Amino acid sequence: MKKKYQVVGIGNAMVDILSHIEDDFLTANGVEKGIMQLIDMNRAVELYGRMGPAQEVSGGSAANTIAGIAALGGRTAYVGKVKDDQLGAIFSHDLRAQGAIYQTPLAPAGPGAETGRCMVLVTPDGERSLNTYLGWSEFLTPDDVEPEMMAQADWLYLEGYRFDGPDSKAAFAKAIDACKAAGGRISLTLSDPFCVERHRDDFREMIRDHVDLLFCNVHEMQAMYHAGDLQAAMKLAAAEVDIVVCTASEDGAYVLNGGGMEHAHAVPTDIIDATGAGDLFAAGFLYGLTSGFDMLTCGRMGCVAAAEVISHIGARPEADLIDLFKEHGLV
Amino acid sequence: MKKKYQVVGIGNAMVDILSHIEDDFLTANGVEKGIMQLIDMNRAVELYGRMGPAQEVSGGSAANTIAGIAALGGRTAYVGKVKDDQLGAIFSHDLRAQGAIYQTPLAPAGPGAETGRCMVLVTPDGERSLNTYLGWSEFLTPDDVEPEMMAQADWLYLEGYRFDGPDSKAAFAKAIDACKAAGGRISLTLSDPFCVERHRDDFREMIRDHVDLLFCNVHEMQAMYHAGDLQAAMKLAAAEVDIVVCTASEDGAYVLNGGGMEHAHAVPTDIIDATGAGDLFAAGFLYGLTSGFDMLTCGRMGCVAAAEVISHIGARPEADLIDLFKEHGLV
Repeated sequence: MKKKYQVVGIGNAMVDILSHIEDDFLTANGVEKGIMQLIDMNRAVELYGRMGPAQEVSGGSAANTIAGIAALGGRTAYVGKVKDDQLGAIFSHDLRAQGAIYQTPLAPAGPGAETGRCMVLVTPDGERSLNTYLGWSEFLTPDDVEPEMMAQADWLYLEGYRFDGPDSKAAFAKAIDACKAAGGRISLTLSDPFCVERHRDDFREMIRDHVDLLFCNVHEMQAMYHAGDLQAAMKLAAAEVDIVVCTASEDGAYVLNGGGMEHAHAVPTDIIDATGAGDLFAAGFLYGLTSGFDMLTCGRMGCVAAAEVISHIGARPEADLIDLFKEHGLV
Repeated sequence: MKKKYQVVGIGNAMVDILSHIEDDFLTANGVEKGIMQLIDMNRAVELYGRMGPAQEVSGGSAANTIAGIAALGGRTAYVGKVKDDQLGAIFSHDLRAQGAIYQTPLAPAGPGAETGRCMVLVTPDGERSLNTYLGWSEFLTPDDVEPEMMAQADWLYLEGYRFDGPDSKAAFAKAIDACKAAGGRISLTLSDPFCVERHRDDFREMIRDHVDLLFCNVHEMQAMYHAGDLQAAMKLAAAEVDIVVCTASEDGAYVLNGGGMEHAHAVPTDIIDATGAGDLFAAGFLYGLTSGFDMLTCGRMGCVAAAEVISHIGARPEADLIDLFKEHGLV
């Protein structure tokens, strides 16, 4: 029997606040380039006060992936916490409007933490430096995970970032158990090399015991396995995980599934804003996987989706991804 | 003595919620194409629930103009009401971050009306259909107008849209009196042909008695003066106003100031989203005027600024407008 969802994602629910800045803004404000830094509300207010005019678009790593799969016509749901405030309304609207199920209850309005947000500072080279105020997304607990929903998922997609915060591991464990008990499979994205540093042992244990599909980029792979080269690191990962997928920017993506390594070439494009590249790669790959395509095609779908999202501002697709898949002879 | 502000704008403060839709969405939802419709909160919720994923950017017609002048390095201030909620914070941040003074007090948070918003539905031809929930912007009263600020303005820039709502005419009158008493001058934009229909008599009286510079497009000009052709309508307007400026889309803009008519050609560009074209035209023109340029150059500055803003999503400039003026040999 076909399950209700091809992919259910769990992650940090947040709205991106995007602004184009020069490199010297980063140094003047102590922002490290190209990575994700967690910041508190005070720092968020300070940084926002200093940065230029911005635009707001729904974000959140796993939420971007789920939005991408939904945009492709895939059956999806998402679990992540926002508050009943204006940014929370924007986040939940945008996911539902994309066709994904979003049914995490909105936390009641009132004082205190607000809906999470990520200040995305885009430098002229298209690189982005992320400054994340987790807000309500941090308070995801096992109570927010409905076992019935997890049991209805072919695949779970877990965001490594969500390991930052209390109760997150318990929530992930509950979701994994319910999904696996019903025959579903587990995918994880390592999210960020510093996230790997923060949670290496927990990640390692989870990967070994539960993960069927691991998404990462070369920096995260290196942080995780400290191997001599990418090939060696991927083999270490593949000893523990069925499918290992490693993205490599302009070198495309590598997929290791049992036997040989597959290499999907990147799709050349002008980089306007690299935000969401990894998220949309995962969207394309998971769409392909849950639609019965072979590993190389899944990797190529990931590369096409990633190329679309970096060609414009914002981390959610704007063009019709199925049309792009057709143009590339993938469907 | 140089005044503190080259231009002070007064208008509806709001955040734009931009979404790309197909034409049949408009017909299915009773949205009239290409114009601004006022909607209430219920209709706003209904329409938002039906529309696809969106992005949020600060908008408001006169606020876009003020942001444009500030982006050019002009000294500006803006008066318009938002609430102390997340959209209000976004609106006030974006104006200040652009270099404009925004000091209208934020209305206290709490139940009831929220910060105004405009759902901008962009069809594939780049045309936009505006659905405006005025929210707090409607409650601008004379108390929000500081005579000292108005006296410090070379030019006031009044948004015709703001005639929709109680106390607006009194607020405008207070601002006009304070500005004129200190030797300042008054500009008005007619905003929209339907806005002209709603307020023709009041507009006419205000134009005749107070306005030194009138901005409009050909549709608004026609709605206002019912003349046989554009030339005739502009002459009718010029009998009452020093400077009459009429934009004409791909035909550029016409400027009538005393003697002959000047014609500034449009700058060819791919239209991605026409939102803000008139607002940025006014920004370029007013920047030129308050910087001492001749009428034709002012018109050409307006056309360059308008072309920039329609080449991307959102109604505020993204490129360096001064650089664009240099490329066109204007500065």
